Amino acid sequence: MSAHFPKFSTTILGSNSALPANGRHPTAQLLNVNNHYYLIDCGEGTQMQLRRYGMKMQRIEVVFISHMHGDHYFGLVGLLNSMHLLGRTRPLKIIAPAALEEIVRIQLDAAGGRIQYPIEFVVLDIAPQEKQRVYEDAQIKVNAFLLKHRIPCHGFLFTEQERERSYLPDKGGPAGVKLQEIPKLKAGEDVQRPDGTVFRSKDYTEAPAPPRTYAYCTDTLPLEVTSEMVAGANCLYHEATFIEAERKRAKETFHSTAQQAAEVAQKAEVKELLIGHYSARYSELEVHLTEARSIFPKTYLTEEGAEFEIK
Amino acid sequence: MSAHFPKFSTTILGSNSALPANGRHPTAQLLNVNNHYYLIDCGEGTQMQLRRYGMKMQRIEVVFISHMHGDHYFGLVGLLNSMHLLGRTRPLKIIAPAALEEIVRIQLDAAGGRIQYPIEFVVLDIAPQEKQRVYEDAQIKVNAFLLKHRIPCHGFLFTEQERERSYLPDKGGPAGVKLQEIPKLKAGEDVQRPDGTVFRSKDYTEAPAPPRTYAYCTDTLPLEVTSEMVAGANCLYHEATFIEAERKRAKETFHSTAQQAAEVAQKAEVKELLIGHYSARYSELEVHLTEARSIFPKTYLTEEGAEFEIK
Repeated sequence: MSAHFPKFSTTILGSNSALPANGRHPTAQLLNVNNHYYLIDCGEGTQMQLRRYGMKMQRIEVVFISHMHGDHYFGLVGLLNSMHLLGRTRPLKIIAPAALEEIVRIQLDAAGGRIQYPIEFVVLDIAPQEKQRVYEDAQIKVNAFLLKHRIPCHGFLFTEQERERSYLPDKGGPAGVKLQEIPKLKAGEDVQRPDGTVFRSKDYTEAPAPPRTYAYCTDTLPLEVTSEMVAGANCLYHEATFIEAERKRAKETFHSTAQQAAEVAQKAEVKELLIGHYSARYSELEVHLTEARSIFPKTYLTEEGAEFEIK
Repeated sequence: MSAHFPKFSTTILGSNSALPANGRHPTAQLLNVNNHYYLIDCGEGTQMQLRRYGMKMQRIEVVFISHMHGDHYFGLVGLLNSMHLLGRTRPLKIIAPAALEEIVRIQLDAAGGRIQYPIEFVVLDIAPQEKQRVYEDAQIKVNAFLLKHRIPCHGFLFTEQERERSYLPDKGGPAGVKLQEIPKLKAGEDVQRPDGTVFRSKDYTEAPAPPRTYAYCTDTLPLEVTSEMVAGANCLYHEATFIEAERKRAKETFHSTAQQAAEVAQKAEVKELLIGHYSARYSELEVHLTEARSIFPKTYLTEEGAEFEIK
């Protein structure tokens, strides 16, 4: 019997690097974890992209911003403003570099109004080399770690929370389990009734699906330490701004080639690799895919509007 | 014989109000004056809209920002950044409320780099009730004046510079005019040769086309003073966020209805009226047009990608 897997997917809202071009937008992804929504980066036009693909902006609970290059956050203040205009009251958490809070505040202040929902900023620490827990709720735990770019930049590792065991009513047993006994069984404990009847947790429940992980790494040089940080991830998103012909340019600009992204994935022994953050110079992306797959066959191109299930 | 009219047009890049919706974008227009380019407002996504309609961002010489609501400037920093990435060295002038400079600077600073072309900010004065000259070059003069919105907001009046007279080589005359005599004739002066031959300017040249004016008024309540400021304009762009059914809402939010925009145009005796800045609530705009035309027949809806010649 296969375990029940809650939803865990990323929808690509922007797949390009700094310059919007070839119909592609700057970086943004919408992570769905058991129908809770997390936005990762927010390039210019993200609110229009959310609308285009029928995603509800008000359902976003947390925004993660990797670094302070505009193609990763210029769409944020417009999104915050639209959430306000559309009547949001639900709090929003923003996990980002320190500079972002002032940039948002100064723009909200200039508009002369206030945002009627609470925004909580959590500042990413630029010091630690180790993984750092930056967020946790009932659905996910998120660790951040440093990448290597022109300015401080963080990768994120999204890990599903351990689920409780699933109750299996059709498993049969000595007598009907009562409704109020189920939570204890799902928590892994056996139930013993006063009359001595015992219901064993393992007989009535099954182990939960193992937590899956999604690693998000952009913008960065290819790093040994990234492979360690994301080791064994179910899915790694790694930037692949360039192809091998521009390897020198990639290094100069603190970016990666598709092949280098694949090498990180290979060393990390992740299950699947998504690549993106394409330079505006490429209208076609076949070379990115071919070069990456020569190293890591389970590589996929991000495409805007596409939803990738994290398996 | 008709006078020669240099190019004078506005291309609509965004026609909606605060919320992008129904395929419409927040406010931006590209003014072409004799093939010199001026951007008026710059809502989120303006750089993508410029690209979509094949307009060259690097040709923009001056940006005018009416006020500090995000739907009129959230696209600016992304545009400035892209101009830099695409190698701009040509200076850019930005004429805007005082708060904008710090908002732009703080974001450029956070990116850790510098912009390699000069940006000059000119601050709009919020005190004067009179028209104020805020910009002038060989093509246009621009006056700003106060509108009435929730926060300080400026209207702009773009007036073509007076042209010199046009030389008419086919007009005939007593003898061939020499090349070096033409500038004097075009300047309106007669040429007298040492041998006594006279060439009269009026015989060899014709008066230039009278300067045209384009008035841009958004966001605002409908105002008597606006009609005075833009009196006789060849074309008035006036916001028409709502229709009559939402007249109360228009007043509460310091906006205008289409009919009110038409009343301003009528009082101002302008030649044509463009309306826009539509609320996201309207998927169709026929009512806007019908209501405005009932007052001012030469009303036209702005549509994104459309270029309106100022006649």
